[in-house]
Amino acid sequence: MADRYAPAKIGEPITDADTPALVVDVAKLMHNIRLMREMVAELHKQHHVPHHIAIRPHYKTHKCLDIALRQLFDRGAGYPHNSAELAASPSSAPAATFTSGVCCAKLAECESIVYGRCSDGTRSWLRSVTSGSVQDEADVHWDILLTNEIMGKKKMARLARLLAVMQERARRVGKAAHGFKIAVDCRAHVDQLADVARTAGVVLPLYIELQNGGGRCGVDSAGELVELAKYIKAHPAGTVTFSGIHAYQGRNQHIRNHADRVRAVLEGDATKMVREALGLLKSQGVVAHTDVVPVSGAGTGTFPLEIASGVFTEIQPGSYAVMDADYLANANPSDIISSSRFATSLTVLSTITSTHASPARLICDAGLKAVSVETYLPTLVSILPATAKGAQFWRNGDGVTWKYVSGGDEHGVLVPKNRADEEQVGPWLRAVSLENLVGGKAVLVAGHCDPTINMHEHIVATEDGVVVSDVWNIGGRGVGF
Amino acid sequence: MADRYAPAKIGEPITDADTPALVVDVAKLMHNIRLMREMVAELHKQHHVPHHIAIRPHYKTHKCLDIALRQLFDRGAGYPHNSAELAASPSSAPAATFTSGVCCAKLAECESIVYGRCSDGTRSWLRSVTSGSVQDEADVHWDILLTNEIMGKKKMARLARLLAVMQERARRVGKAAHGFKIAVDCRAHVDQLADVARTAGVVLPLYIELQNGGGRCGVDSAGELVELAKYIKAHPAGTVTFSGIHAYQGRNQHIRNHADRVRAVLEGDATKMVREALGLLKSQGVVAHTDVVPVSGAGTGTFPLEIASGVFTEIQPGSYAVMDADYLANANPSDIISSSRFATSLTVLSTITSTHASPARLICDAGLKAVSVETYLPTLVSILPATAKGAQFWRNGDGVTWKYVSGGDEHGVLVPKNRADEEQVGPWLRAVSLENLVGGKAVLVAGHCDPTINMHEHIVATEDGVVVSDVWNIGGRGVGF
Repeated sequence: MADRYAPAKIGEPITDADTPALVVDVAKLMHNIRLMREMVAELHKQHHVPHHIAIRPHYKTHKCLDIALRQLFDRGAGYPHNSAELAASPSSAPAATFTSGVCCAKLAECESIVYGRCSDGTRSWLRSVTSGSVQDEADVHWDILLTNEIMGKKKMARLARLLAVMQERARRVGKAAHGFKIAVDCRAHVDQLADVARTAGVVLPLYIELQNGGGRCGVDSAGELVELAKYIKAHPAGTVTFSGIHAYQGRNQHIRNHADRVRAVLEGDATKMVREALGLLKSQGVVAHTDVVPVSGAGTGTFPLEIASGVFTEIQPGSYAVMDADYLANANPSDIISSSRFATSLTVLSTITSTHASPARLICDAGLKAVSVETYLPTLVSILPATAKGAQFWRNGDGVTWKYVSGGDEHGVLVPKNRADEEQVGPWLRAVSLENLVGGKAVLVAGHCDPTINMHEHIVATEDGVVVSDVWNIGGRGVGF
Repeated sequence: MADRYAPAKIGEPITDADTPALVVDVAKLMHNIRLMREMVAELHKQHHVPHHIAIRPHYKTHKCLDIALRQLFDRGAGYPHNSAELAASPSSAPAATFTSGVCCAKLAECESIVYGRCSDGTRSWLRSVTSGSVQDEADVHWDILLTNEIMGKKKMARLARLLAVMQERARRVGKAAHGFKIAVDCRAHVDQLADVARTAGVVLPLYIELQNGGGRCGVDSAGELVELAKYIKAHPAGTVTFSGIHAYQGRNQHIRNHADRVRAVLEGDATKMVREALGLLKSQGVVAHTDVVPVSGAGTGTFPLEIASGVFTEIQPGSYAVMDADYLANANPSDIISSSRFATSLTVLSTITSTHASPARLICDAGLKAVSVETYLPTLVSILPATAKGAQFWRNGDGVTWKYVSGGDEHGVLVPKNRADEEQVGPWLRAVSLENLVGGKAVLVAGHCDPTINMHEHIVATEDGVVVSDVWNIGGRGVGF
């Protein structure tokens, strides 16, 4: 059906893609993946962090195996690139940075990684960067942290199957364990997962989620965390283990002012509660005093601060790989660790289907089924008239500045940004000519990348910004059951 | 992959469905389909409308072939049920009501109807209501109005293929034409579609869209409409025809106060512009004075008013079949034509994955990937504790009243509605016991049905509210290219 019909073919001009379509600039994507590694290494050194800092990219952002494999295996920076390479590293000093695995938000995302297929292009790339030792995605020993609590018979049956497949793959590549970890926040989760582990004959590592201001899942205090850790430890050996703390604070990510963001993370509840929990775990003998308890959290907007705090051992950034208009609004030129250093590698290509001079507006085919509008509106990057050749775009701002306003489920409406622009639009539209714009393209940056990508089936990849170099499947999209 | 994995099996309790899942109560759905027919017949009589009033349900609401076939073929009310039955009707008086076909918002939706497959359950139902004359969905001669403008090479290639398939099907069932109509608002659309029609060897009926206050597509004045109609007529015979006016006003649908809604529709631009356009078309000889020009528009919130206006020949309601919290807020007990007469046939079933006493909150697995929140938040209908049997739900309001607040992409957060409720929640939670609620179910009504359904792959159907009677595929979901 139309859903699974790919919007473009390799070798075509991007502007021939059927719209609305997601487009990823691969060079910018790789820049972001490498920049994250460099920034983390730099922060690790700067703050004299005495333990490893791992990057565990959040798969929920893109849900695309082709991107996840690049995050795990790219060798573009001079640091150990993943946990296997870290283990083989001769240095005994805490590693500056490496990729420990991926996070997922839903079981369906985990399944799409473990059972999924990447594109032929990615498969070739994978063979080349691993010198052929990894033939394809089925050879990858994944380390997945499911950062959410799940409940229910059907979910547990699916988890049992996933564990069996991951365990079998681990055996094949000579690893001891399946590589799957999951968040819990109450006894019901622990009991249910212990049953699954017992049935599957595996040990399941549990991360206790700490609710640190987000107001959703997670134990509400350090005391509750320690009690739950003890409860896990009281389970029979060979079922579940207490393996770490999951402490992500979503609200801090988008505090616009950098100083406020610093205060919110370093002096806020999140870091305080983690520190308190670590203290209690040690003072009450749940872990040894010398143990480094894995603490996983942080996102694109705050990871430098979680690293600076010294209590986090792993960061979970997702959006940095593709970026969106909401994160771009965090920009702060004086802030060297601003998320604005990441490039916008993802855009939404839409077709202008209707044009109007008075009131001036262009209608494009990216409505709220194609671009998320619930927290932040998309922004317009550029316009390509129907008759223009190649990449001859009008950049937004060249004489006339437009903004995107929602036109409902199927339409985006581009209108002048303000009155001054409005006065320029008339002459500009006459100069360009309306007929020249119908059938042209409007390039948008998503307001919020995760739910935008979730609506699409494919990502059109380009190396040069002009020609389609690959078409990637968004395997993990959906409501996520 | 997980996306295509159906959340439930026929015969299972609904509460065993993997969540988040859409659930449709088929009895309520059929009630809505019949109520719409009865209301239109009543309004037709009441306002002495001198021409046919057709119902053309909007497929964009549900995108589900199993529901569209019920809208087209159900015989539950004493009126001609579709255009074929109308043609066979002995009466020469204008028909009270009948279903002329369906509307679609996107080409992908049209494709999902024409190329799609319904469930075995629907196929049996179809054979029974048509006495076997329609064996399956491939025997249905669809009449589709695509209510949007489309542009682009790939779109046109797909349209040409669709027309060929529809033309072939029309021949097989003895019809003269393919049954596809499409909206236009400028010369570029007309030229492009004339090319497709010429290549495909078919005549393509065009509806000119009138922009009547919505501020997106559509010609901006009656004068422009007449000029474009003349432009269409100037094309060679056997390519395109001017076949009607598409005049839908989305903003009027949700005016809460009934009197304000009446004013907006009957005295507003929409109706005035249509009337002016009809006058000009006749005075300038584009159509004959005796012609009834098809005028299609109206939605669930306003259709009684468009019928009352006397200028609309066809209404396009979509949401009435399933309803949502936004339309329910239009409720007006003194308003006999209120959309609140339709039943909420669609709910979102979610699992409570985490519970907390202080601050009191229940976390469910229906976040903004499963329930649209961009215009109106979902509402909570009921809660089923994990240990309850069958349909033993706590209705919202039984001692404690909750509201849904967004918890981001993957979570919904249920919190007390106000301070008074907050005081009751503590004792209620202790009485029910938190452990009893983890793994339980929360039943929601979507805030906005169309984009909510668009995120799902399946609809779980139930006849009795307890057991799964069928699982329907949402064939037309997606970004809609």
